Amino acid sequence: MGVRKEAIYPVQEWEITETEFCRETNYRNETTFSLSNGYIGTRGTYEEAYPFDVDTGLEGNFVNGFYESEKIRYGEANFGSPLLSQSLLNLPNLKETRIYLGEEEFSMEAGRTEEYARVLSMKDGVLTRRLLWTSPGGRKVRIEIRRLVSFDMKHIIAMQYEILPVNFSGTVRIVSVLQADVENHTRKTNPIVDYGPFGRKLKPLELWADNTEIFYKGITQTSRLTIACGSIHTLSPSESAAAVSHEAHACDGAIYFEVQGKEGEKITLEKFICYASDRDAAEGSLDTFVSDMLRKAKARGYRQLEEKQKEYMHQFWETADIEIEGENSMELQQGIRFNLFHVFQSAGRDGRTGMGAKGLSGEGYEGHYFWDTEMYVLPVFIYTDPEVARRLLDYRYGTLEQARARARVLGHEKGALFPWRTINGEEASTYYPLGTAQYHINADIAYALALYLQATGDLSYFKEKGAELLIETARVWADAGSFAECRGGKYCICSVTGPDEYNVLVDNNFYTNLMARENLRDAVNAVAYLREQDPACLEALEKKLGFSMDEAGLWERIIENMYFPYDEARQIYPLDDGFMMRRPWDESRIPPEKRAWLYENYHPLFIMRHRMSKQADAILGMYLHSSLFTEEELRRNYDFYQEVTLHHSSLSTCIFGIVACEIGYVEEAYRYFADSARMDLDDYHNNFYAGIHAANMAGTWQAIVNGFAGLRCCNSELHFKPILPPLWKKYTFKIKYRGSLLRVCVEKDRLEFTLEKGESIQFYVHSKKVRISEEGGTYIEKV
Amino acid sequence: MGVRKEAIYPVQEWEITETEFCRETNYRNETTFSLSNGYIGTRGTYEEAYPFDVDTGLEGNFVNGFYESEKIRYGEANFGSPLLSQSLLNLPNLKETRIYLGEEEFSMEAGRTEEYARVLSMKDGVLTRRLLWTSPGGRKVRIEIRRLVSFDMKHIIAMQYEILPVNFSGTVRIVSVLQADVENHTRKTNPIVDYGPFGRKLKPLELWADNTEIFYKGITQTSRLTIACGSIHTLSPSESAAAVSHEAHACDGAIYFEVQGKEGEKITLEKFICYASDRDAAEGSLDTFVSDMLRKAKARGYRQLEEKQKEYMHQFWETADIEIEGENSMELQQGIRFNLFHVFQSAGRDGRTGMGAKGLSGEGYEGHYFWDTEMYVLPVFIYTDPEVARRLLDYRYGTLEQARARARVLGHEKGALFPWRTINGEEASTYYPLGTAQYHINADIAYALALYLQATGDLSYFKEKGAELLIETARVWADAGSFAECRGGKYCICSVTGPDEYNVLVDNNFYTNLMARENLRDAVNAVAYLREQDPACLEALEKKLGFSMDEAGLWERIIENMYFPYDEARQIYPLDDGFMMRRPWDESRIPPEKRAWLYENYHPLFIMRHRMSKQADAILGMYLHSSLFTEEELRRNYDFYQEVTLHHSSLSTCIFGIVACEIGYVEEAYRYFADSARMDLDDYHNNFYAGIHAANMAGTWQAIVNGFAGLRCCNSELHFKPILPPLWKKYTFKIKYRGSLLRVCVEKDRLEFTLEKGESIQFYVHSKKVRISEEGGTYIEKV
Repeated sequence: MGVRKEAIYPVQEWEITETEFCRETNYRNETTFSLSNGYIGTRGTYEEAYPFDVDTGLEGNFVNGFYESEKIRYGEANFGSPLLSQSLLNLPNLKETRIYLGEEEFSMEAGRTEEYARVLSMKDGVLTRRLLWTSPGGRKVRIEIRRLVSFDMKHIIAMQYEILPVNFSGTVRIVSVLQADVENHTRKTNPIVDYGPFGRKLKPLELWADNTEIFYKGITQTSRLTIACGSIHTLSPSESAAAVSHEAHACDGAIYFEVQGKEGEKITLEKFICYASDRDAAEGSLDTFVSDMLRKAKARGYRQLEEKQKEYMHQFWETADIEIEGENSMELQQGIRFNLFHVFQSAGRDGRTGMGAKGLSGEGYEGHYFWDTEMYVLPVFIYTDPEVARRLLDYRYGTLEQARARARVLGHEKGALFPWRTINGEEASTYYPLGTAQYHINADIAYALALYLQATGDLSYFKEKGAELLIETARVWADAGSFAECRGGKYCICSVTGPDEYNVLVDNNFYTNLMARENLRDAVNAVAYLREQDPACLEALEKKLGFSMDEAGLWERIIENMYFPYDEARQIYPLDDGFMMRRPWDESRIPPEKRAWLYENYHPLFIMRHRMSKQADAILGMYLHSSLFTEEELRRNYDFYQEVTLHHSSLSTCIFGIVACEIGYVEEAYRYFADSARMDLDDYHNNFYAGIHAANMAGTWQAIVNGFAGLRCCNSELHFKPILPPLWKKYTFKIKYRGSLLRVCVEKDRLEFTLEKGESIQFYVHSKKVRISEEGGTYIEKV
Repeated sequence: MGVRKEAIYPVQEWEITETEFCRETNYRNETTFSLSNGYIGTRGTYEEAYPFDVDTGLEGNFVNGFYESEKIRYGEANFGSPLLSQSLLNLPNLKETRIYLGEEEFSMEAGRTEEYARVLSMKDGVLTRRLLWTSPGGRKVRIEIRRLVSFDMKHIIAMQYEILPVNFSGTVRIVSVLQADVENHTRKTNPIVDYGPFGRKLKPLELWADNTEIFYKGITQTSRLTIACGSIHTLSPSESAAAVSHEAHACDGAIYFEVQGKEGEKITLEKFICYASDRDAAEGSLDTFVSDMLRKAKARGYRQLEEKQKEYMHQFWETADIEIEGENSMELQQGIRFNLFHVFQSAGRDGRTGMGAKGLSGEGYEGHYFWDTEMYVLPVFIYTDPEVARRLLDYRYGTLEQARARARVLGHEKGALFPWRTINGEEASTYYPLGTAQYHINADIAYALALYLQATGDLSYFKEKGAELLIETARVWADAGSFAECRGGKYCICSVTGPDEYNVLVDNNFYTNLMARENLRDAVNAVAYLREQDPACLEALEKKLGFSMDEAGLWERIIENMYFPYDEARQIYPLDDGFMMRRPWDESRIPPEKRAWLYENYHPLFIMRHRMSKQADAILGMYLHSSLFTEEELRRNYDFYQEVTLHHSSLSTCIFGIVACEIGYVEEAYRYFADSARMDLDDYHNNFYAGIHAANMAGTWQAIVNGFAGLRCCNSELHFKPILPPLWKKYTFKIKYRGSLLRVCVEKDRLEFTLEKGESIQFYVHSKKVRISEEGGTYIEKV
């Protein structure tokens, strides 16, 4: 038991390797080898810029938060339907580098390519391509290209292109290109939408080249955002350049390096690319900003930037890596690291950008941020890199104004309602039953915030931003439902969509009601804490938000009286009020090729009227608040949902796996985990070309740490209930908690907890309180 | 008590009169004075063709069933979303007739207009305009223009234009124009849609003129339908024509009649206009078809056509008129006749067209047919002109194939699902929560059919078409729900929208479940009847539909086990499962100017989460099947819905009025009735410009006959429970029933039933069986 599909790439601990160039798998591989630093994202495309069509490849370069808008058209628009789209814009490409040996252009589609390997070093955060190429005319060269998107200099992509003439001497031309005639593939990556940045959307404002630099500045037509980008070059040995020339047109430019190549002597071109937007510098000084940045990068040189990159990445792995040992564990190990690598590199880190459901790896979902960030990704960062978690929360806090305005559009006089999908903080979902109706996004954000506060103890964040966010989200819950006489005065929330996208516009979605209650509880606690500890802070909030303590009184009433659907016969919590009443799902009526694509093949009403669930919904709520349920309850509910859930979302199996652990269904848990670990690496959903599934990737971490190791944070305290999958000998991971670093190692008959950093730590293992009182201290439990 | 607004037009028994030409009220008046025969519709525009803009007027000429399609764009399309729109197309105008006295063109915006009256004679079906005009240069003419859309010749509009020079002799020029450069006002009349036949959609195929005729043929760009139209003229005295000339361009043409006008001598131009489409004749022979039709009309002459028109209309009024006597009754009398007139003239009569919610009076709702036809309009025709009712049912039967295909799209393997809005039989609703989800359309059509069969006893129709329609609609109900364990095995229907458009995608909508059950019952009875009486017919159906008797067994189980939401505390039937749980509606939170326009000012989720109802929903079901409820039950439910219903639909008040009668709330009933009677005539909704509200207009008839007189048809038997509104002395109406004509007269202390035609009739008055056994016989009951 393990993976469900043969591995696409060789199974390696720390690398992903492409062993041949192949047009058919190119589009997918571009995602696999995509690099990012949370600010810039660039797809794993080739420097030769092969002319792929819309089905075989997409040159993609993105800057987090940089989008274009189009007028959205509706069959019938509703009040509050977003009028403008937000699509992560595909930006000018500067990676393009063409090589000519005499008149022969290097292309892997001509001549003969040998010793080919493209390697993503996940450990180092560097992508390398090596090959030996013989031109049709018989010239032989070794080529090695290195590429990284710098964590140290967030505006910089650094490249190093080495050419070694093996059997000839003669003219070698290197052409470094800036190509701004680019466009999104919206129709391919978002087939359901009929708008989008079709065609070239950047209007060029400036484009020039000289013999070392190329520069471009352009502005989007509707969103009116300005991007500037450029590249700078170092050729070595510098004396080898026989001639350098350049040209610049409206939408492209190039520098031509002509070199007298000598057999056995390596030519190296270092190339630094910079992207910056009018968020980084005023439009008028963007030229200087980019130029300065490029010169700085050039001065440091490729090698130094790569060293820094490794340092940064090693630091990440030092905390975040999960090691497993056991049968076939290498495949899983590779999957885990692949997932962690992409999650890590994709997260916005500047406090004004979030993390797209596809990271910055492709155009899928238009680059939008969803709840995926808070419920799947944030817990990983909270325990491994809380600084990144904080910056992602900052992004949400920074869009509170838009969320307040949105709450008004939805008829709430107070509070803030976060958008279901967005880049700029405004709602971009064009189909509200699967979009705005997912009010749970509010509670999801509050949940992640509360978890961050608990795990870090970051009180100043709580006072500065956290309390406000908790209050503003809670207020919408207090207005969205009502105490229903016909339900014994319980608080009911109607007409929402829970996480499960096959059951839309329902009443009393279990997950939503549960999460809303906890959102309210966190807000009540926040207010109570401030009243006790920092009345001035509370007063300031009261003033700023027009908030009064009466509201907290109402919240308490709601908390005490929240309604939950309950099925007496089965003693389970149905998904919502109407779930049990629906027609039982009969998959035999669905042709196999349509089974995983219901919305593509069936009318929403057909889907809605059946008793089945797309993904973890009530079960997710029970995982997040598992201390509120007995194991017996969890088991009954799990058994029920196990039967009715189709797992048609990539966000589902990892959650089921976690709950399966909790109730002792270890085999099932392992199956789910394995599914999650290599889902993207082996492209289970056949849509990896459009970008990574960030939520599931983060879910893999959770499946181990929260699943197998049973980590929960309850009233700011850590609880573990570790189990070991039968096929494994051992697994190890680390988590950060209130400034400490705890290493956890689970073996068949032995649990080991080590306080790697920090003065002392307290936690629970299988409900037993454990305290390690000095750095380096260890707690060992024989099982 | 009576009408809620001052009358716009003078209160007259049989006429609607416009007493001045006024640009501000023109758009509305164009609807008031629109004429139709169910095939052609032409708005009440002026012959002078004033250049009104999109806010002040719309020259509109329509042919029932003639539409153009556009690709519909969606923010996010669903499987099964209609891809092409259907919009009743605005066709070339031929009414345009310009008059020149010397060089001075007649225009009511120049010179002086006196003795002005535009009169719609509802009794005759003729529109007349008379005036005395003095040109700026002092020439005085009397003008009288008569216009009718012929019931006798369905392709013909006939006009007579009389000019009497009062104080001068000299050249009078008459220009008869064909203007094909026309377009729809979709953006104004359907502000919510972002598609539509914007711009000129007919591609001219042919346009010619000679000295008596003009002809045009054009084809739509997307729906590929061909229209031909033309006009023919008779000038008299014929010798007065000094010169006749003509011209024809790509999109317009004209005939110029130059006349030596003499003081005191009348010049008359008769003009006959014909419209025909490729449904009337093969495209190649449309020229001949139109030409022949025009020559026939011309040969008969205007006067004869007007005589025929009167004959036809008088015949209609002979059966359909409702007379009332009492305080202020004239206002209501006028409203009733206005409503009946428009309903009568708007209905498609050729079996391949239906009746638009706006008739053929404007572009509102894109000219679509809705359930309005079956639930509001058909009962009126069934009792007054069953032949028209049958033709409207024929239209639905004729689109069964499209409805079957639609059922498949919705995932039903058997049966037919009729579209929520359509022209050509295919679904045209672009927002399924308010469109396709209104499955009740199926039961509505079945209800109207069953009522037709009961009231007419038309067995051959039943066998030929009726049984098939009942079976095919029933089959969808048997697949849409399921026997829900959690509801004691009762049959639940989830995720539908009832008539109430503020509560969408609900579970167990009371109206839907009730109507579905009765649809199934009618189907069961149909099958049982055929098995007994005509096994060959049943066998043919079994073969044609792949129907088996097992299905009828399932239907019976569903009938016995249909679930209905019930509120124990209040002992009422809530609108649906979730209705009672919603937030109570607090109108004080809604600014007055937004109260009647919720969808324009509030997000659907805001509307959905509140406990209020847009229109009669459960109450409508209780009216249609009132024999299933006790008076006490009706009263409790009425009281409840009275409180929560906002009557934001024009389909609401007439139904509440009917139920109010049944439970003895006479004053309230009267108030509702008055509201309905003059709703359009006095433009209560301020949107009459876009077209009539046909459903409410028909609802006025129902409010009297089914309301005050309490008519119900139960197991094919008629029941009356007449009451007299306190302000009235008397009201009289007639109904057709199984070939007989019954006159009903209700006075304060006396009920009189007369069998005007037919050999005998049996019915119930306040549950007492009455039989009149000879033509002319009378039953009188003193009260």
